Amino acid sequence: MYPREWPPVYDNDYFPPKDSRYWFEKMETMDAREREKVIFKKLQAQMEWAYNRSPFYRRKWEAAEIRPQNIKTLQDFQSVPFVRKDEIRRDQEETPPFGGYLCIPIGEVLRTHGTSGTTGRPTAFGIGFDDWHRIANAHARIMWGCGIRPSDIIFIGSFFSLYMGSWGALIGGERLRAKCFPFGAGVPGQSVMALRWIKDMQPTVFYGTPSYSLYLAELAKKEGYVPRRDFHFRIMFFSGEPGAGIPTTKRLIEETYGCACIDTGSTAEMTPWMTNAECEFRTGMHLWNDIVYTEVVDVKTGKVVPFGEEGVPVYTHLERTSQPMIRFWSGDLTMWTDEPCPCGRTYPRLPNGIYGRADDMLVIRGENVYPSAIEEVLRGIEGVGGEFRIIVTREKVMDELVVQAEYTQDIANRGEKNSGVFENLQKEITTSLKSRIGLRPTVELLEPNTLERTEFKSRRVIDKRDFIKRVQ
Amino acid sequence: MYPREWPPVYDNDYFPPKDSRYWFEKMETMDAREREKVIFKKLQAQMEWAYNRSPFYRRKWEAAEIRPQNIKTLQDFQSVPFVRKDEIRRDQEETPPFGGYLCIPIGEVLRTHGTSGTTGRPTAFGIGFDDWHRIANAHARIMWGCGIRPSDIIFIGSFFSLYMGSWGALIGGERLRAKCFPFGAGVPGQSVMALRWIKDMQPTVFYGTPSYSLYLAELAKKEGYVPRRDFHFRIMFFSGEPGAGIPTTKRLIEETYGCACIDTGSTAEMTPWMTNAECEFRTGMHLWNDIVYTEVVDVKTGKVVPFGEEGVPVYTHLERTSQPMIRFWSGDLTMWTDEPCPCGRTYPRLPNGIYGRADDMLVIRGENVYPSAIEEVLRGIEGVGGEFRIIVTREKVMDELVVQAEYTQDIANRGEKNSGVFENLQKEITTSLKSRIGLRPTVELLEPNTLERTEFKSRRVIDKRDFIKRVQ
Repeated sequence: MYPREWPPVYDNDYFPPKDSRYWFEKMETMDAREREKVIFKKLQAQMEWAYNRSPFYRRKWEAAEIRPQNIKTLQDFQSVPFVRKDEIRRDQEETPPFGGYLCIPIGEVLRTHGTSGTTGRPTAFGIGFDDWHRIANAHARIMWGCGIRPSDIIFIGSFFSLYMGSWGALIGGERLRAKCFPFGAGVPGQSVMALRWIKDMQPTVFYGTPSYSLYLAELAKKEGYVPRRDFHFRIMFFSGEPGAGIPTTKRLIEETYGCACIDTGSTAEMTPWMTNAECEFRTGMHLWNDIVYTEVVDVKTGKVVPFGEEGVPVYTHLERTSQPMIRFWSGDLTMWTDEPCPCGRTYPRLPNGIYGRADDMLVIRGENVYPSAIEEVLRGIEGVGGEFRIIVTREKVMDELVVQAEYTQDIANRGEKNSGVFENLQKEITTSLKSRIGLRPTVELLEPNTLERTEFKSRRVIDKRDFIKRVQ
Repeated sequence: MYPREWPPVYDNDYFPPKDSRYWFEKMETMDAREREKVIFKKLQAQMEWAYNRSPFYRRKWEAAEIRPQNIKTLQDFQSVPFVRKDEIRRDQEETPPFGGYLCIPIGEVLRTHGTSGTTGRPTAFGIGFDDWHRIANAHARIMWGCGIRPSDIIFIGSFFSLYMGSWGALIGGERLRAKCFPFGAGVPGQSVMALRWIKDMQPTVFYGTPSYSLYLAELAKKEGYVPRRDFHFRIMFFSGEPGAGIPTTKRLIEETYGCACIDTGSTAEMTPWMTNAECEFRTGMHLWNDIVYTEVVDVKTGKVVPFGEEGVPVYTHLERTSQPMIRFWSGDLTMWTDEPCPCGRTYPRLPNGIYGRADDMLVIRGENVYPSAIEEVLRGIEGVGGEFRIIVTREKVMDELVVQAEYTQDIANRGEKNSGVFENLQKEITTSLKSRIGLRPTVELLEPNTLERTEFKSRRVIDKRDFIKRVQ
């Protein structure tokens, strides 16, 4: 049943009793202190694995005077330095394509995925054969916890490409022996077709982003469908953006579709990314910490905060042989608790989900956007003047990005005679931003010296989405 | 090794000797007459399976006075009536969603895929768990025959959604234990990203459509890459359209990328669709007829034609339990031969590939387009007059569709005063056709009575692609 060896080998034919709420009942409901022993054992093996195989970790830990065998408690583990996103990006640049933290021979990489790299060099994920199966087992187990069963038909309405979200939901669904309908998304015209197939095939589970599900509902109404009546989703589970954890959005989705709206997801680097996931009771995401060990740490001190307090989730793989992340700094903001959930699982929980960022990164329609990338594009365009603003809003269901940019005096002079000058500049900014950040912004041109001058990057960013909290 | 039971159960861990050219050497190289005995045994079991489980086949065969046990030879099998595309579409309409030819309980359908349904009701494919694994095994075996090995990295540059092409290549690659990089295609901006990942990850095998590979090469040159130098594809295999079997296109792809260009593919209904596939010698597609039994029949009489002659491929599943197709009329045109191939396989072969259609269906950029669908759209738009023409060309690498339509006298009168009238009509036609057939045509408006009047549908279609042959 629950594997004892490391790296763990899961039985791909294992199933819990049909009427069980749990996949591995004992592990999911045991005393949290007891579980820490299991976690610590896996953690030691994971650290040894990385230390012995990865120049990246060996260098990093030696610099910090850390040796795996000296880490004797979870308390000790807090001395291990964080891994940051730009650090692994740099490491992949130096050791392409998978970085010096790849702990298996490159020939054993089964699947390649990655980030879209809209804000610089993309990060490549190389996942080994064994990891692929462990990810499938982890996701099947957590999806079972969401209430999904083999009799369900899972419609996957997200893009199949680099993005790990869709693939993780698919292999979890397959391992669960549910019927999978990997429809995808993103191709022009595909959403109208999706509606017809959803009507005809009557899938019972939906996976995608919350904003896409709401977009689909809007479109459905336009096309004459009533989602509650014509579709048959009993569970919709989400990742990629915070929506499904925001009470108003959750309620809107549940009312629109007549379903349970379930929030999941950590980050692609951590695949299995579903180790943050709500159960059927939807009281906030459980941290399935015998698969990925999660600490919530203070934004400034980096120390683990007590339950009830806010901080940054720091993730550690406990069963990943290919590209383990050990103390990965997510940069997200959350609050954790150990108050019991009616489901009986004894994992810590994020009652308000992931609700903000501890750096200046914006998540807009699921894309990670750094204000610095927008600034760089603007600075490179002749005719763009001194100051700019980045404004993010959410109108109904979709995030909107507005970029306000002042033009130069020269443009002002030429534009007086020929309004095409403004038009061309606006087009150039729009196209350049689109190709860099992957989103089409609304660009507003302003006269020189309209905006207040500032040296503070953060003042240039106005995020009007009231459910996003920012700490910097 | 080669399974003897029916339905066949493949050993998912089986591999041929490392240096073997063949996956199942004996089966692939045995005397063709001997192999017919194996084929016939599988055929009998397949027919029994369908007869006992499918109202569709039972009804159809009873009407034709066919009983499986009376079919005693492959010669007898020629009396079994063809299954046609519109017949299964109608059957799915009557017995949604998978039709009366679904031979497993609907709860056992593991995966749902389908046609895009741009020309009417889409066809739904319901594939069972066991079939899914058989398909993976069939494709791994055939991909091995193409020269692909576990050490290869397969870049899949086609759309992951309903389309079976991408998924079939992926599960074949996974079963082969090759490294898979399912990048997908179709989303705006994705191709530029593809180039960067191909450069960085150095995949050795490409799957997609021939025209997309040539588009990608054009784009690569624009972006400053030299495909032969910067990319590392040693094998590129294709399906979805005839290109890879057309000598000039094959040469162009091989010279552009410095690779072996390999043609594969029957049709999505037949999944495993790779049972037409070239080997590394590229002498035309082998018919891997112990997996799918393929006959080539006379367009008019429906009788099997001798080797060396032209006809329509008619396909029969030999190991499909979910939605077996038994004598499926593909409507394609080909010529077959039994002349030996240097690879030593004794399968029949299609030396010129699939090079035409025996009905009026057009395949444009991989989409099936019926002229009748275009006609229906045009007839439904106010302002469109009497006659029209459909012109298909290929400029460089991409198919182009031109629709010429006469406008009415009323439009002519109003358009004289206000040219916006023409513009609006043109836009309406373009949009309506796009949403119906899935392709954006170039619409040309003509004055009333410009085109010659005709009652012959075929005269309304002008296919200028010289590699496509049409027989009606």
